[in-house]
Amino acid sequence: MAPPGAIEVEAVTDTTGVTLPDPLAAPIQSNEIYGRRRKHLKNQWGVAAPADSKNFRHKDYDDKPLAKRWDHIISEEARIRKGNSLKKAAKFLGKAGIISLGGGLPSSEYFPFEELSLKVPTIGKFSEAETRESGVTITAGKHDLAKDKSIFDISTAFNYGQGTGAAQLLRWVTEHTELVHSPPYQDWRCTMSIGSTSALDMALRMLSRPGDMILSEEYTFATAVETAAPLGVRVTGIPMDAEGLLPSAMDDILHTWNVSIRGARKPHLLYTVPTGQNPTGATQSLDRRRAIYEVCQKHDIYIIEDEPYYFLQMQPYTGPNAPDVPPPKNHAEFLSSLVPSLLSMDTDGRVMRLDSFSKVLSPGSRVGWVTASEQLTTMYQKHADVSTQGPAGMSQLILFKLLEDHWGHSGYLDWLIHIRLEYTRRRNVILEACERHVPREVVSWKPPMAGMFHWLKIEFKKHPDYPAKPIEDIEEQIFMRVIDHGALVMRGSWFYANSEEEHDTLFFRATYAAAAADRIEEGIRRFGEAVRAEFGLKEENGVGNGKA
Amino acid sequence: MAPPGAIEVEAVTDTTGVTLPDPLAAPIQSNEIYGRRRKHLKNQWGVAAPADSKNFRHKDYDDKPLAKRWDHIISEEARIRKGNSLKKAAKFLGKAGIISLGGGLPSSEYFPFEELSLKVPTIGKFSEAETRESGVTITAGKHDLAKDKSIFDISTAFNYGQGTGAAQLLRWVTEHTELVHSPPYQDWRCTMSIGSTSALDMALRMLSRPGDMILSEEYTFATAVETAAPLGVRVTGIPMDAEGLLPSAMDDILHTWNVSIRGARKPHLLYTVPTGQNPTGATQSLDRRRAIYEVCQKHDIYIIEDEPYYFLQMQPYTGPNAPDVPPPKNHAEFLSSLVPSLLSMDTDGRVMRLDSFSKVLSPGSRVGWVTASEQLTTMYQKHADVSTQGPAGMSQLILFKLLEDHWGHSGYLDWLIHIRLEYTRRRNVILEACERHVPREVVSWKPPMAGMFHWLKIEFKKHPDYPAKPIEDIEEQIFMRVIDHGALVMRGSWFYANSEEEHDTLFFRATYAAAAADRIEEGIRRFGEAVRAEFGLKEENGVGNGKA
Repeated sequence: MAPPGAIEVEAVTDTTGVTLPDPLAAPIQSNEIYGRRRKHLKNQWGVAAPADSKNFRHKDYDDKPLAKRWDHIISEEARIRKGNSLKKAAKFLGKAGIISLGGGLPSSEYFPFEELSLKVPTIGKFSEAETRESGVTITAGKHDLAKDKSIFDISTAFNYGQGTGAAQLLRWVTEHTELVHSPPYQDWRCTMSIGSTSALDMALRMLSRPGDMILSEEYTFATAVETAAPLGVRVTGIPMDAEGLLPSAMDDILHTWNVSIRGARKPHLLYTVPTGQNPTGATQSLDRRRAIYEVCQKHDIYIIEDEPYYFLQMQPYTGPNAPDVPPPKNHAEFLSSLVPSLLSMDTDGRVMRLDSFSKVLSPGSRVGWVTASEQLTTMYQKHADVSTQGPAGMSQLILFKLLEDHWGHSGYLDWLIHIRLEYTRRRNVILEACERHVPREVVSWKPPMAGMFHWLKIEFKKHPDYPAKPIEDIEEQIFMRVIDHGALVMRGSWFYANSEEEHDTLFFRATYAAAAADRIEEGIRRFGEAVRAEFGLKEENGVGNGKA
Repeated sequence: MAPPGAIEVEAVTDTTGVTLPDPLAAPIQSNEIYGRRRKHLKNQWGVAAPADSKNFRHKDYDDKPLAKRWDHIISEEARIRKGNSLKKAAKFLGKAGIISLGGGLPSSEYFPFEELSLKVPTIGKFSEAETRESGVTITAGKHDLAKDKSIFDISTAFNYGQGTGAAQLLRWVTEHTELVHSPPYQDWRCTMSIGSTSALDMALRMLSRPGDMILSEEYTFATAVETAAPLGVRVTGIPMDAEGLLPSAMDDILHTWNVSIRGARKPHLLYTVPTGQNPTGATQSLDRRRAIYEVCQKHDIYIIEDEPYYFLQMQPYTGPNAPDVPPPKNHAEFLSSLVPSLLSMDTDGRVMRLDSFSKVLSPGSRVGWVTASEQLTTMYQKHADVSTQGPAGMSQLILFKLLEDHWGHSGYLDWLIHIRLEYTRRRNVILEACERHVPREVVSWKPPMAGMFHWLKIEFKKHPDYPAKPIEDIEEQIFMRVIDHGALVMRGSWFYANSEEEHDTLFFRATYAAAAADRIEEGIRRFGEAVRAEFGLKEENGVGNGKA
C-alpha cells in the first residue's frame, strides 16, 4: 500500500557487472539483483518503518510449494504472543498530512552524532596492510535520507527500529540469501537476529517445551547445550563420522525412541552445524545433507541449521609437498564450490537457517539473520519486538555502509573469497605443524574442510593409565600437561551433547583462527611434546622420555 | 588477580574539574572519579576480558548491609542456568607465555574496519546546528589498545564480548550509577543490557513463573504487558494519581489478595516507571517513592524500576505568562533537582533498576544497563552469555568514544542539562497549545514534570453518546475523529495494565518529543477541534458546531 505523499526512489545500479550464477536454479547476476530491484517508496526507509523480506526477493516463487505448518510443535509462549500493539497506530500514519503526536520516539535532534565514518578496504585490497595504505573512507551523515544522499542515515538508524531489523539491511541479507541458497518453497522469509546464540534461544522458546529432548551431533557447540538446559530441554547426541552426524544413526535413535527410558517425548527438533562443525570441524557432504533431510522428513523433524562457518569453506588440502589448488577463478566457481545448504534443499519449509556476520565480518556487530517460513519468521519478529527489538541500529548502519553503499554483493563475494584463502592458509599451517610435531601413534585427525577448528583424536587406550583411570581423568591429565608445556587446547568432553550419555572417544579441539602462523606452529609443537610425555613416547629429537 | 605479564596503565585524568556532589551521601567530584580510579591492568581491557563492576566502584560499601537473598522468587530456569562453560578455559590464559589454540574467536585481521570516526558536539555546543559548525571528530583505530592510544579499539570492541558488556564501558556506567544513585547496600553491581525491553524480558524469566500476576501502574507501558503475557504472567493495575501509583491502594490490593478470586499466588514483583511514566507522564515524588518502598518491604515485593525518562526531568512549569525558572547553575544543582531514585533508597537490595541511553543519546545503540544485587546481576549475566551475548561491540565503542574519551562524566552532565532544557521547551509548547486550543470543559491535564508524554483526561460522561455507548466505543469514536481532523494521539486503553479489569477513566496520550514546535501546536489545535466536534461544543472561533 503506497501511502499518499510518498516519493519514489530510483533503483540503485550496480556497476561492477560481475556475473553470478545461482548454483541451484536459473542463473542470476549480481548486477541483476540491483537492476531488477523494485522501486521502493522513500517512506519504506523511514524511522522504524515496517519491513517484509518478501518485497526484496528477486525471483517469483509462485510455482513452488508452500511451507508445511508447524502448529503442532509451536510452544504456548509463541502461540499466544501478540504483535506489539503500539505499532497498530502506525497504520494511520499513511493519511496525508497527518501530524503524529503518537509514537514515543525521540527526535533525532537529540542524537549527538552528526557523522559516522569508516575506513574500510577497497575491493580486492583486503589485507590489513593494504587497507591502511589504500582503504577508503565511507561516511554516513545524520540526514542523508532527507537529502537523498543515501537510503540510510544516522537519524534513521540511531532511532528505534523494528524486530525485523531495518528494511535497508534486510533487503541486502534477503538478496544475499536468495543468491546463495534460493530456498525451494514459496513463503520463505528473512528476519534479522542479534546473533545466532540469541536466535537459538528464541527458536528453542518457540519450538520446544520443558522436558523435551532435541537432537544434535554427539559433540556439539557447548553454548547451544547451555542455552537449552535452563529451558528444561536436554540434547541427545547422534554418532558422527568425519562428515558429521550419521543419518542412519539418527534414524535408528528415532525409530527405537522409548519415551519411558528416555524420559521425554520423541524429538521433533534437530540442531545441526552442517559446515565446519564446532568442535569437530566436520562438514556434511551434499549426499550426507540429502540423507539427513530425508530422515528428518521421515520422522517429521524440524531442523535448526546453524551456519556461522558456511563461508569458511576452504580450498582442498593437498598436503605439505603438493601444489595448492588454484583459487576460484570467479564468483560462479566460488559459489559452486560451496556445499549446498540444507535450506537450499528445503522443499518442506522445515529448516530455520541461522546466518551470522561474526566469522566473516565482525562478531561485535551482533547482527545476524534467520531464514525460515513466514509462519516462523513472523513469530520470531513478534518476540523480537518485545525483547531484543532487533539488532543495534549503529551496527546496522555500519554494515549497510560497507555492504550496500561500498562493496555491493559482488565486492562482498570477493571479500569472502579472500577469507576463504586466508583460512586455507591458516588451516594448512596447523596441519603441517601437526604432521611435523604430533605423534601419529596416539593422535589422528582429518584435514578440516571448513570452519575454525582442528579436531584431534587421542588413542586413550594406549595411555599408560588406561584402564586404571577413567577416560575423563586421562583427558584432564593430558589437558593439564599441555598447559604445563605452554599451550591451551579445548577438552572434547566440554562439547558433549549430553554428558550423561556414554562416551568412549577422547578428543581435543585446536583452533587455527586466532593466533599468528608461527604461534600456531609453536603451540602445536608444545601440544605434541606434552602428548609424547603423557604417553611415554620418544621425544621428537629421538630422546626417550618417560612420564615425569 | 594480576596475571603475569600484564602491563599497568596510567589512570586517566579528567581535566574538566567540575565539582559534582553526590546528592545523597558524602560529596564526590566528577574529576575525583577519574583521579581516584584504580590502576587497571592492560589485559583487563582485552578481547572478551571478564569484567566485574565491583572493581569500578569508587566508594567503600563495607559498612553497608548486604542485599537480601531472593532465592524464594528465583525461577527454575534462572536457578539451573550455569555459566558459559567454554569461558572456563580462560582462567588458564593467565599463565606466562601460554599459546592459546583454545577459544574460537576470529582474528581481528579479518575485520574489514581500519578506523571509525564520529563527528560529535563539543561540550556546551550541543545543538545540531552548533555540531555541524563546531563539532569535533573523534576516532577509534583498529589497534589503539596495543599502541596505548586508548583502552578500547576496533580489534577489541568488534570481537566477541561478555554478557556484562565490555569492561571499558561497564566502568563508565558503574561510575555514573554511583554518582547519581549511590545505592545504600554493599553488594550492588551493574551489568549491561541490550536495552530495557530485553532486560525486562530477562528479568521476568528470572523472577516469575507462568500463572503469576505482577503489579504495575493501572496504565502502563504496553510492551511490558506484552512481554509478560506470553510467559503466562499477567499484570494487575494499581490505581494512580498525578504522582503515579498509590501506595495505599497497592497495600490494599496485597492485603486483600485472594488467590482463588485472582487465580494467581500473591504477587512478589512490582514493575514501575517512577519518572515521567509511560503513558501518564506521572512522576513519583520523593515521599511517594518512600511510601511505595515501604509497602514493598511490608509485603516483600521485589521492584523492577524502569527508568528511561529519569534524565528527562524538566524545569518546573510556570505557565504561559510567567518567567521561566532559571536553568541549573551547576552540576550540583542539577543533580539535586532530580527526584531520588528507588535504587538510591534501596537498603534491602530489592530493586532492579533498568537504565537506558535510548532517550538521552540514541535508541539505536541498544545499550542499557541493569543495577541490582550481585545475586541477580550474576544470573542476568549468565543468561546474557547464552542469549544476547551483551550489547553490540560497535555500539559500545561508539558510546565509549563519546562518553569516556570525549565528554567524560562532566561533559555528559552538561549534555543532560541541555536535554532537560530542550524537553522543557517542548513540554511548554504542548501545554501552551493545550491551554489555547483544548476545551477545558471536557479535557483536563496536569503539566508533566518528566518524560515525553502529555496525558489528557476526557470527561467521557459528558459525551452525547454516554451512557448509551460503552466507554471503549466513545474512546474509539474520539480517536477516529482526531484522525479525521489530521492528528494522531494514542488511546489510553492501549495502556491498560489489565484489560480485563474495570476502567472508568478515558485518556489520550500525546507526545511532545518528536514533532517540531509548530507541528505540535497544530496537532493539538486539530485535537481540540476534533474533541469539540465530538462533544458538540462551540468551535474555538465561537461558532457552534453540532456533531457531524
